[in-house]
Amino acid sequence: MSEISCHIITIGDEILYGHILDTNSKWLSENISLLGLKISKKSTISDNYKEITTSVNDSIAKYNLTILTGGLGPTNDDVTKNCLNEYFGCELVYDNKTLDHIKKIFKKRNLDFTPKNKQQALVPDKCQVLHNKYGTAPGMSFIKNKMVLISLPGVPFEMKSLFNDECINLIKSKFKLPVIHHRIIKTVGIGESWLSDIISDWENNLDKSIKLAYLPSLGRVKLRLTGHGKDLKKVKSKIKKEEMSLIPLIKKYVFGFDSDELENVVGKQLIKENKDISVAESCTGGNVSSLLTSVPGSSKYFKGGMIAYSNEIKINSLEVPKDKIEKFGAVSREVVEEMAKKIRIKFKTSLGIASSGIAGPGGGTKDKPVGTVWIAIADKNNVLSKKLSLTDRRDVNITLSSISLLNIIRIFLEKYRE
Amino acid sequence: MSEISCHIITIGDEILYGHILDTNSKWLSENISLLGLKISKKSTISDNYKEITTSVNDSIAKYNLTILTGGLGPTNDDVTKNCLNEYFGCELVYDNKTLDHIKKIFKKRNLDFTPKNKQQALVPDKCQVLHNKYGTAPGMSFIKNKMVLISLPGVPFEMKSLFNDECINLIKSKFKLPVIHHRIIKTVGIGESWLSDIISDWENNLDKSIKLAYLPSLGRVKLRLTGHGKDLKKVKSKIKKEEMSLIPLIKKYVFGFDSDELENVVGKQLIKENKDISVAESCTGGNVSSLLTSVPGSSKYFKGGMIAYSNEIKINSLEVPKDKIEKFGAVSREVVEEMAKKIRIKFKTSLGIASSGIAGPGGGTKDKPVGTVWIAIADKNNVLSKKLSLTDRRDVNITLSSISLLNIIRIFLEKYRE
Repeated sequence: MSEISCHIITIGDEILYGHILDTNSKWLSENISLLGLKISKKSTISDNYKEITTSVNDSIAKYNLTILTGGLGPTNDDVTKNCLNEYFGCELVYDNKTLDHIKKIFKKRNLDFTPKNKQQALVPDKCQVLHNKYGTAPGMSFIKNKMVLISLPGVPFEMKSLFNDECINLIKSKFKLPVIHHRIIKTVGIGESWLSDIISDWENNLDKSIKLAYLPSLGRVKLRLTGHGKDLKKVKSKIKKEEMSLIPLIKKYVFGFDSDELENVVGKQLIKENKDISVAESCTGGNVSSLLTSVPGSSKYFKGGMIAYSNEIKINSLEVPKDKIEKFGAVSREVVEEMAKKIRIKFKTSLGIASSGIAGPGGGTKDKPVGTVWIAIADKNNVLSKKLSLTDRRDVNITLSSISLLNIIRIFLEKYRE
Repeated sequence: MSEISCHIITIGDEILYGHILDTNSKWLSENISLLGLKISKKSTISDNYKEITTSVNDSIAKYNLTILTGGLGPTNDDVTKNCLNEYFGCELVYDNKTLDHIKKIFKKRNLDFTPKNKQQALVPDKCQVLHNKYGTAPGMSFIKNKMVLISLPGVPFEMKSLFNDECINLIKSKFKLPVIHHRIIKTVGIGESWLSDIISDWENNLDKSIKLAYLPSLGRVKLRLTGHGKDLKKVKSKIKKEEMSLIPLIKKYVFGFDSDELENVVGKQLIKENKDISVAESCTGGNVSSLLTSVPGSSKYFKGGMIAYSNEIKINSLEVPKDKIEKFGAVSREVVEEMAKKIRIKFKTSLGIASSGIAGPGGGTKDKPVGTVWIAIADKNNVLSKKLSLTDRRDVNITLSSISLLNIIRIFLEKYRE
């Protein structure tokens, strides 16, 4: 079966010029690829008659499905509908269902119904109208030479509900879709090239129908396996088989799968092991607590933290012995372990974690250059600490230290599982 | 003078399939348009030899400047460099400066230097190498028929610093750019439509050669004035004049200009007033401390913080009276003011700030629904507090509360200036 190709076109100067971030095309490509279509291209163009016409013409000559978003509003800079009307040789006619719906919206919100609003119910006579429950601009679908074009509004929640309510069935009815399946394996604490070295034999023997992608971000690398085929069960089982031979090679770096995030995984581990945690942060400045508490329901295991930024607070509030700081320096194994132990006792939690380092740009010395960071974790019996040698960049150092600190929780919990 | 057109091409299946959000092309289009170029198109394509070659070929036939990001990593799915090498008829050679730089990075971080890492220093012999201070993949620039192509790595902070350090001068040297000047006025604590109402008379009388854009983000709105012309001095003076008549209308919302960020502005204010600060966070969970400490040199004024997430820590460590929490609830004016006062005394700082609220999704009640947040600031004589009624979304509530808490520092320091 040949692949069904899709091109997503975002229309609008505010996206083109980067005034707002385009989240629609991310959402659309994710959801369209889940249906088994191949995402061939995404484009962003100006809300300009000529640009839209040229792009539509090129796209429906090349791709099975073209999806447009944006340019359907009531103001003068919204030209998509008129463009498509002309391109597909249609006449604009009122769609009564849409007109009734718009009138109802205006009545409910006590707003005046102006001629401009009425125009929103005009649609090209040869299109299939896609009814927009949450807004005034209907979606439209056109067919030319077996190629399908769908035009959706740009307001994200209108676009999403129109896609779910109308487009999925439309796409399924127009195309014979192949089966596609993705599996994402998430690693932390190893760089892309080392990972690639470790798994190179496995990668070279990978089933030809399965594609591997490395998706790196700061401190983490995702491995994505994608399989195509005719039978979902077979594709899934092929991917599962490859996954089973991959995991043992990289086990200690794998923290999760698919939509897992490190902070959620650690949270689930803490709940499972019935432990709570407190945090003493120096160089990470609150970022670790912020990550842990970004998870809904984190109050179950996160009790609190102290940002002991100055030495006085390390000494007076966290009760790190002054002579330890004087002897070893604030950025040292001795002090960071003491911080982890003290916050645990102070905040009465099963685990305490801590960071102390030189985030930069200032504060570095020859022995302890910018990027030198110590992290630690302690429970009532054990302490685990680690020195990190990071970069020159403050933001990168804070992020990498935070990820390492979350990761050391994971490692500690696995090592000392009760 | 004719416009210089630019096409930004993002390479990578992870962006194409929506596994990650494309923030690079937003940033690039914003920054390239600031130089006076016209953004004609943005595209996202697969990291596939044929796709890249076709797109590069089409783009340099049509647009003055093509910028590629992505596909420069060390693994097998990164094919951009080889593609460009072949397309521009080059040979790959080692760039010694890059090789030295990569070796240094590996030495500093105590990592093994593998053959794959060495390959990162290979560059096409006819390209101009753009040195990447923060990563191992260099950028490259090529010229064909007076059209310029620049290839940048996909890692956002590497791409951004390469653009700032190398590309701006390169672009300015290759093209005769129109004179363009921007002035950004940054506001906080007022929505786009209210702002637009306040300044509508001013906006209607704006000099015809100057364009106004509203650039909203969570909790903040930027107003960008853009002037085009032939003489930079004249353009700047026209914009200055408009700015002078705008500011008095919106003075209390303006926190900065151009590249100012709220956390930096507040930091400068604290240094100027010779004050230091400590933070007691509940619902913001460390995010406010994290923002304050993201600023280099923040240890001058930020002494520390306590994340008093659980009531026990509010009572036992922060010493908020238990009966206050029982009588008014943790999310109340009384408790948040007490938190701000107590952290100030405990951490011996001139100012204390605090947050307490229901970030959601759980924990809401009829009287205090999700999104109810109290924030406060205290010095030795005064307390200022504010109730916020925010949204249903945890992440949005944390961000908006944090921005409001930074803003209340600014307001307090202006109000009680000594």
